[in-house]
This record gives sequence, C-alpha cells and structure tokens, in this order.
Amino acid sequence: MDIQALEKIALSIRALTIDAIQKANSGHPGLPLGASELGAFLYGELLNHDPDDPQWINRDRFILSAGHGSMLLYSLLYLSGYPLSLDDIKHFRQVGSPAAGHPEYGLVPGIEATTGPLGQGVAMAVGIAIAETMLAARFNTEKHQIIDHYTYALVGDGCLQEGVSSEASSLAGHLALGKLIVFYDSNNITIDGSTDLSFTEKVAARYLSYGWQVLHGSMYNFEKIAQLTTRAKAETGKPTLIILKSIIGKGSPHKQKTADAHGAPLGTEEASATKLALGIPDDFYVDPVAKDFFAGKRLVWKANREAWQKKFEQWGAENPEKHQEWNSFFNDSIVARSMPVFKVGDSVATRAAGNKALGALAAVNEQIVGGSADLRGPNAVGIACTAAFSATNRQGRYLHFGIREFAMAAISNGIVLHGGLRAFCATFMVFSDYLRPALRLSALMKQPVIYVLTHDSIFVGEDGPTHQPVEHLAALRVIPGLRVLRPADAEETIVAWEMALEWHDGPTVLALSRQGVPVFVKEDPDWHSTIRTGAYVVKKIKDPELVIIATGSEVNLALEAAALVPEKKVQVVSMISRELFEAQAKPIQEAIVPPGIRILCCEAGVRSGWEHYADREDILSIDRFGESGPAKKVAEHLGFTAAALAAMLRKPGKAHCC
Amino acid sequence: MDIQALEKIALSIRALTIDAIQKANSGHPGLPLGASELGAFLYGELLNHDPDDPQWINRDRFILSAGHGSMLLYSLLYLSGYPLSLDDIKHFRQVGSPAAGHPEYGLVPGIEATTGPLGQGVAMAVGIAIAETMLAARFNTEKHQIIDHYTYALVGDGCLQEGVSSEASSLAGHLALGKLIVFYDSNNITIDGSTDLSFTEKVAARYLSYGWQVLHGSMYNFEKIAQLTTRAKAETGKPTLIILKSIIGKGSPHKQKTADAHGAPLGTEEASATKLALGIPDDFYVDPVAKDFFAGKRLVWKANREAWQKKFEQWGAENPEKHQEWNSFFNDSIVARSMPVFKVGDSVATRAAGNKALGALAAVNEQIVGGSADLRGPNAVGIACTAAFSATNRQGRYLHFGIREFAMAAISNGIVLHGGLRAFCATFMVFSDYLRPALRLSALMKQPVIYVLTHDSIFVGEDGPTHQPVEHLAALRVIPGLRVLRPADAEETIVAWEMALEWHDGPTVLALSRQGVPVFVKEDPDWHSTIRTGAYVVKKIKDPELVIIATGSEVNLALEAAALVPEKKVQVVSMISRELFEAQAKPIQEAIVPPGIRILCCEAGVRSGWEHYADREDILSIDRFGESGPAKKVAEHLGFTAAALAAMLRKPGKAHCC
Repeated sequence: MDIQALEKIALSIRALTIDAIQKANSGHPGLPLGASELGAFLYGELLNHDPDDPQWINRDRFILSAGHGSMLLYSLLYLSGYPLSLDDIKHFRQVGSPAAGHPEYGLVPGIEATTGPLGQGVAMAVGIAIAETMLAARFNTEKHQIIDHYTYALVGDGCLQEGVSSEASSLAGHLALGKLIVFYDSNNITIDGSTDLSFTEKVAARYLSYGWQVLHGSMYNFEKIAQLTTRAKAETGKPTLIILKSIIGKGSPHKQKTADAHGAPLGTEEASATKLALGIPDDFYVDPVAKDFFAGKRLVWKANREAWQKKFEQWGAENPEKHQEWNSFFNDSIVARSMPVFKVGDSVATRAAGNKALGALAAVNEQIVGGSADLRGPNAVGIACTAAFSATNRQGRYLHFGIREFAMAAISNGIVLHGGLRAFCATFMVFSDYLRPALRLSALMKQPVIYVLTHDSIFVGEDGPTHQPVEHLAALRVIPGLRVLRPADAEETIVAWEMALEWHDGPTVLALSRQGVPVFVKEDPDWHSTIRTGAYVVKKIKDPELVIIATGSEVNLALEAAALVPEKKVQVVSMISRELFEAQAKPIQEAIVPPGIRILCCEAGVRSGWEHYADREDILSIDRFGESGPAKKVAEHLGFTAAALAAMLRKPGKAHCC
Repeated sequence: MDIQALEKIALSIRALTIDAIQKANSGHPGLPLGASELGAFLYGELLNHDPDDPQWINRDRFILSAGHGSMLLYSLLYLSGYPLSLDDIKHFRQVGSPAAGHPEYGLVPGIEATTGPLGQGVAMAVGIAIAETMLAARFNTEKHQIIDHYTYALVGDGCLQEGVSSEASSLAGHLALGKLIVFYDSNNITIDGSTDLSFTEKVAARYLSYGWQVLHGSMYNFEKIAQLTTRAKAETGKPTLIILKSIIGKGSPHKQKTADAHGAPLGTEEASATKLALGIPDDFYVDPVAKDFFAGKRLVWKANREAWQKKFEQWGAENPEKHQEWNSFFNDSIVARSMPVFKVGDSVATRAAGNKALGALAAVNEQIVGGSADLRGPNAVGIACTAAFSATNRQGRYLHFGIREFAMAAISNGIVLHGGLRAFCATFMVFSDYLRPALRLSALMKQPVIYVLTHDSIFVGEDGPTHQPVEHLAALRVIPGLRVLRPADAEETIVAWEMALEWHDGPTVLALSRQGVPVFVKEDPDWHSTIRTGAYVVKKIKDPELVIIATGSEVNLALEAAALVPEKKVQVVSMISRELFEAQAKPIQEAIVPPGIRILCCEAGVRSGWEHYADREDILSIDRFGESGPAKKVAEHLGFTAAALAAMLRKPGKAHCC
C-alpha cells in the first residue's frame, strides 16, 4: 500500500470537492471532505476494476449510498481514469454535465447506481451482492471463478436511519452475503445537527443482531482500514459493517464537525482557509503524485482484467454449455416456449394466469429470478422450476424477501444493475406505496425490474380499504418511464409477461386481479400483436357510435354492459397500457379508438388520467376508498357494475373534444 | 387476577374467531387463536379504560398493529362492552358491518387506529405515547396526574420486518418512552411459512440496540405475562418489548403451527375439530363466566373513570389557566393572531413564508407540535417559540424525527389520534414517496395531520431528478380525502396554513417552494376568503378570451406570460387546491373559471389530472424527470418558461369541452 500516494489522492479529492462545490455555488462538501481517505483507499487500493472497461462484469462494485457526497465519487472517477473530465467537474451541477447533483446511473460509466434518496444505495448493494452470489453459483467451476467480486457501499447516518436499510440489512444477514462490505462514515452529524438529536441507537449492536460482522476503526488510518477490510474479506459467511469514525467537513477550520459543512458550499473565505490549511496550492488542484499513481494503477487494472478475460475464454472453451447459457443470460433475449393456453369462458384470476406465464418463461429463461414480500401464494409468483435462494442454496432463484416491500424493490434494482439477471418482485398493489421510492429509481435508472402487483382493485373484497387499491393505478401511471400493464384476462396476461420481459429500458408493473375473470373472445384476429401497441379492439363493430375503453378485469364488465344495450353500436377496447398506446402514431391509435366518437372509460380506480379521453360523466370509476365485503357486494355498493355502465351507454352524450 | 375468567375469555375469543371467519368464509384465524390469552389479559386485566366512554382521554390505548388479527379485537370489544354487537360479528367482513376485514378507525369506538398495513400500528403507538408524554408534561401538576396512561401494541413478525417499525422503534428508544409497551406475538410463522425463510435476525438484540427493555415469556402463562407487564411498567425510562412465544392458530388440530392457519378460514371440518378440541359447545359461543366477569369489570372501569373525572374537575378548579388551555387544546379552535404581512414585489420562498405562518400560529396555538425528517432548516419548520421534545425535555414541541420519513408520518398519525394535539411533519416533496403509506392512512382515518412538503418542483435545481418532484402533486391529489394546497406566494401561504389548521376532517399537504417567488397583486379584493373555495382570480379581465389556471410558483409565471401577450384578454386564476375547487357548487366555480372559455393550465409537474380542464396542447407541464442545474437553467432546458406559456397563449385554440 502506497500510503503517500493515498494521502495525495485524498488531498486531491478535497481540492476538487471544495472548488467544484464553490464554483457551482451548490453541493455537499461534508462527506467528501470527511471521507476522502476511504475514497482514496477504495480507488487507490481496494477496488478490482478497470476504468478502461467500466462494464467489465467481474469488477468490484462500489455504491455511494450517501449520494449527496457525489463529489467524492466524481473526484475518484476522474482521477482513476473513468470518462469524466476535469471540465465536467468544473461544470458540477450544471445542466448537461455528467457530474450531476447526485450520482446518476447512465451519466458516467463507473456510477453503479443512482443514489441520493437515502437508504436505497445500501439496499441496492445487497441486491448486487445477491446477483454476484447467484451468478457465481451458476457459472463458476472448481477450476475457474468467473464471477468473483466484492460489493462495497458507503453509508452515512442518514442511510442507517432509513427503514429500508434495516430491511435490506436484515435480509443480507439472513442470506449470509459474505462478499458485501459496507463502510459506515460515522461522523455523528446530520442536517439538523448532532445525531444526539434523534439517533442514539447502538448501530453496531443492531448490525450484530442482523448476523453481520461489525468492525471499528478510524477514517484517517489507512493501515487500519486495510486491516479491517482484510478481516471483512476473511469472514466469508457474513456481510461486514466497518464503522469508521470520521469528521464531517474535515479540513475546514471553522465548519468541520458541524452541520454547516454538510450541504452548502464552504463560502469563498472558508474555502480559501480550508485550502490553505490543507496545503492545496491551486484551484481544482490534482496532486501529481496522485496522477502518477493512477497512471501506474491503470496498467495493473488492465492486466488484471485481461487475465480474467483469458480465464473467461478458457472457461468458455472448457464449458461450452455454460458459456452458451452465459450468453443467453447476458443477451437477455427472452424465449417464449410452451406458453399456457386457456379456453374462452374459463374463469381465471389474472394472477393465476400470471403464475402459469411466469412458470413457463422461467423454465426456459433461467436468468429470471425474483420473489415476493411474503406473498408467494397470494401473489402467485412461486416458480416450480426452482428452489429458494438461501444461505445454503445459492442455486435457488426464488427470493423470500420477507415482509419488506421497500427493500425488495431496491434489492431488485441492485440485481438488475449487476447485469446477467432479470428480476421480478411482487406484493399486493396497495402496498406498492411501500416500495414506491425504489420503483421511482427503477424508472429514473431505466432498469427493467418487473413489479407483479396483484389484488389490483376493490375486487380484493373482504380485506377492505386498507388492502383495496383505488388510487394506485393512477399514481403509478404518472411516474415517467414506468409501463403499467393491466391485462384483462388469462390470455392477455401471458402476453403481458412477454411484453414485460421483452422490454429492457425501464420497469414494468403487471397489475393482476385477485378474482377470476372469464377469458373472452377477441375479435381482432391479430390481437396478439396489436396489444403490443397498448390497446386493441375486443369487440369490433362497424361505424361505432360509442367506444368503451376498459382495462383489466373491467373489460369483461364492459362486454357485459355492451351486451345489455344491443340498440347501441358499441366498440370495446382493452387498453392494457395507456402509456404505450399514447406513444403510438396517430393512425395506429385511431384504428383502435376512432376519432370523433364518444368514448366511455371504465376502470376500478380513480378517474384521474382518463379525462383526456372522456367527459367525467362518461367515466365509470371509483373516486373514494373501498369497503370491506365480498367483492361483488362491494362493487354493487359502490355502483361499479355492468348495469351502471349500461345506463351510461344508454344516456345521450357527445364526443369528447380531444 | 382471575385466571379462570381469563381462560374463559380466551376460549370465547377463539370461539367467536373460528365462527365469524368461517361464516364470512374469509379472514385470518391464526393470530386471534394464537394470542387469545394476551387479548384476555389485556382487556380482562391490564387496560384501564371504559367501554361506556370510549373517548375518555386518559384511557390506556391498545393498537393491534397486526391488524389482520381483527377478530381478536372485535371479540374483545364485544365482550368488554364496546358498541359492537354479536350480530355485527356475525356479519364480519360484510358490507356495512363495523366488523370490517381489518380494524378501521371510526367504525367502532375502541378501535384506536386503522391497522393492517404492517408496521404502521407500532409506529402510531409511538406517536400516541409521545402525545401522552407531551400532554402529561404540560397539564399534570404535582398533585394531579390528569394524563397518565399506557400505550400498548401487539405486533407480529410482519410488523417487525417492516422498515417503519425499525424507524419508529429507534426513535422511541431515543425518546425514552417509558409508557410504551409492545407485545410481540412471536409465532415464527408468516404467510410464506417459517420465519426461517427470511427472518432470522435476533429481534431481542435489535431492540436492545434501540435502547428498549426486552422481556421474554410464553403467550400461555397469565402469571408470567402479568409479571412481565409489571416489570415493563417499572422501567419508566425505556419502552419495553415483551416477546411472547406463541403458536399460530392454537387449538386447530391440523393447522396450528403452520402458515395454513394464518389467513384463511379453517374450513368446516377443521373448524368443528378445533371447537371440539377446545371444548366449545356452540356456534358463536360466549362463555358465561367471561360474560359475568366483564359485567363486573365494567363497574370497576366506570368507577375508575369517574374517579378520574372527579380528579379532573378538582384539577380544573385548582388550575383554571391550565384548564382553559386544556379546553383550547381539545377544542382545537385555531387562533390566527399577528400573522405576518408581506409587501407586493418581495421575493419570498413559500417555505420561508410558511415558517413565518407556522411561527405565528404555533405561538398562540400551543397544541401544534411537529417537526421534520432532519430537514428543520431546509423545510423551514423550526418553531422559535419552543424547544425540541426529547428524553430530558418533555415540554418541547419540536420533534427531531431523524431521517425517518415513514415513521414520522405514522407517528404524526398517532399523535393526532391520541387527541389534544395537532401534528405537522415535513420533508422534501420528492420524499413524500417514502411516507406515502402513512399519508394514505391519515386520509383513510380522516386525521388532520399537516404534511409540509417543500422543494415542490424542478425549481429545486441543482440536486437534480432524485430530488425534483414531477409526478408527486398528481400522485398526491389522487389519494381520496387528501387536500393538497399549493400556495402561490407568501400571502397565500399564510392563508394556506390557516386553512390546513382549520380543517379537522383529513390530512392536508402544504406544497411549498424552495425558490423565492414574488408577492403579487391580487385583483379579487376578497381573495382572502375566495381562496378558501380552492381558487380565485388573481388577474381579472372583462370578457376574457382565455383563462390560465396555475398553481404555486407558476402563478407568477402565468402573470408574466399574460403580460407578454397584451393583445389577448387573459384572466389568471390561482388554484390553491383543485380538490377544494371541485367540491364547490357550479356558480362558485364559474365565477372563477367562466364556462365555455379556452383554459390553459400551468403547473411544474406532470399534466395528468389537468386534462379535465384543458386540451393537452393547452397544458404547460413537465412530463419527464428533471435535470440537475440551477433552477432557472433547468426550467429553460425543459421549456418551462413564461415565454413558452406566452407562445401557447398566442396560438389559436378552442374552449375545452368540459
């Protein structure tokens, strides 16, 4: 270990941090100044990666869970040779700069995850470590350890206060993720001031209770950090938390150790004073020793990565079947084979159909992994073709997440971010609220996590309003980049699963029914492909007077209603995804929903979002919380019936203007 | 302690549970059968309450955090004399029955909180215990302990896995809530099966790390439970977790100890076998010993409550000032005095104006308590008139919740549910996602918690998309019963705070800006009262051609745009609350937004929800994630400017149909 070089790296981090934040007049100097030594140690000593090939699959991952400390990461990415320039850093927090306020996945190779929303980084790290373990178990041979890397994260007091870190850490301990190493930058300061104000729990004891190894040291002792890391690696049966006592804003003569250092520029005067105290001679200073060090380091990294590449090729040659499987995992081209078939008229809950689809797909696409937040049966996401992933069975692909929805979603993000695996996760739709912050990150990072949300309306029935989503479809649809698919019967559900898996550029929600819904006749002979535009015509009529747009279980209700009003020429459209439909060219849309015709919309949820298509009086919706009772009785009580829709059809009305 | 009677109460709970669930053909027998003894002990021995006066302020509170075990609570409410009949129980889970699937606040007096969404019950219990401590500190005298009650909760494995229980429990330990006693029904079974599948952390050690007392016992030993409870009460400086080992579905010969007992009726055969095994002679059997016991108990409870009433009257007579304050707390009639005044043209962030409003209101309405999830400064919710509530200062009214948004909101629910206090809580709007499940419960329970959500748009600026809400206003507005108020300048913000406090029937969101916005001239001379209808005319014009509806900081943008297009007769409306506006009678609405006129909408968020008012091309919105950069640059980059709105004004258009 070249301590002198590490010191100069730390100095350079501090220099860049101070000046970038000062120039932007915005940012969080506290963490980078306080944790520069850890940063230097990580990138200068610990990480096995290669900035020349940032996507190298066997690289160590580092997640800056405390994402507000972004200048720590940017400094290191720049210094170590990732494609981030000094000029980018000089444009920290400016529109168009990859050095955004918080690290954003996709803006700079080397940013492993978008962080900032606290607690989620460490949960994603748990997901990455799970993926590593799964892939290692599948592809490694006794001779060749193709997948063999560590997952590191840096957390602060904030991350550890958030419930999601508790959930994820408990599961990480349970799963004995020995290659997960979390550094806790323990500076005892948060925005409000001392952690004494609200956070006096014994973090070490808490992590011991989760089954972690817990180690203690100082942020400012490289030898010690190195020793602790060695001990962390030596403990292969437990994740490790390394608690490093630190000083927020270290180096700032007047602001260090205070909350003032956390989230605002030091100010011209204090910035100068800090640079003077630290011996930083220049603006945006990079110490030449640090520069030289990384120039040398890059050769080592390259050699390591090339050695792995050779090993990989050897492994591929010796294990052609595994190699083929590897390719299918990493290409993620989905095979749909022996998909289940249903008979018209059969009453099948779409969650049950979803289980059949998932079973068929998971059997031949072994990169699919996932599970539920303790609702394996109710969500119908058990996979017959595999056992549970556990501390003793690393081959399993089913994940028992426990009753931890938020961590489940963040972990799923991590699994997908790792590469090589496709993750789904499941809970009741109403509890999508619990995981919403992670779902937002899936969308922001464009990660194709599949959210299986069953029990998708008041047709949940007896469990009552706490378990009946009414606002959730609307609330999900407003998240940019999220696709909500609400299939209407068993046949559509099969396609929905295929659509979800075929899409690689963002998350998908599969909204599935608890209750049985009849499989219906589809009058569009090409419905199987038309549905991929987001909608298709279920019941076609020449020169329709009226179009009903319905989703999910309400398509059957619409068909019933139309049958009750034979005197009107009613066309029925199943709109599996409004977002997708709206992304189509006008002619495609108009082939399904003809222009200038009165439209009625029908969905068992709030009307918000449907007002683009129909007048309010032409929307059959549920704009209140539900009720406890048998599903049919609840629907009647709320006036949400085919008869009610039929009455709307009979009433005179006009085409909506849009 | 009359153990024989307690046994008969437990037997009656089991009898009612089995039959009610069997009759409904729906429900969760596992918990009530497994924890009947604790239920019997709570209502037969421990609780100091009076079913004849369920609102008695000094009653002990009991929260069934594991709300799916609702039949435990209903059995006990019925047996102990709350207004819930045997007939109600026979209609368990039927539309209209107060014995709903999960306990719903407001349906039966004696249900202290709506539970079912796991983990939130215990967090609400923490809030109730905080409220008790605050009120005791304020109103008790050395001579009279007017407020002096315990808060009990029953949690299962599910509650303890949820992150929100971690957050709340950590804070409860920090705050040394000695009168909070949580019973953990530890049966090692969840829906998926054994807790070995996902939950092997050491719960006792975890709670010790939070600073709790942790005790152990068996669910089926009344003497032991009594001893543990005595020890829990004796520890006045710490909350206590009492871990009771139990058997899920106890009594069911074939289903006990298995997940099968958890969430489905036992089935006709197994129900009979269970009743036979337990010696239950009849359908919906209530043991006469249990009946007699409660008949006697009710006299005791009544006497206790009447003794308190006497003490209260004495206290009132001896402490007239305190008594007057008590009345003002419990009537919660808000006084608005010496409210801040602003000058037209001043640029003030609405969060800053909110701080002034809160300061003025909190100074004269001392029932207002609350705080932020570690964003006291950024959210601008510090209250000058009070110190922080802490383990050593029970007089404080400011709550340092720590970086625990979800627990913050659930705790706020608990504080308000207790009665006597009004709670607000604050975070960045983008992190409303973290607390959304508790906000939903505020709405479902109609509890007037005030959510101060600052940094309400992309005008957050440099922190970037992780910190810029775009979908959140839309996602919040779809929650039934929630009022979203987005004031447009400092003056409106003052009224918004008043409106929030004046409303007692549900939660309010105050959406406040990070950035300064100019105070503008309001051409409606009665705007101060008109705004209470949800909207008013800021810029009035005779025979307008166009109306711009804008909210929050975009009202200034709309005024700017209108000024750029003097050739058009543009009326500008500030719509502080769409929900409120839509609840008005048509003439009131039409006085503000004249019918038959083209409307443009302008809000720095997704357009969803505005399509009722305007064609899509007439909505200036942001239908994508934001960007990191100075706010103004971000807005320009996104085309969200007065110039863009002016261009829309200039374009020909037509009246929207609605």
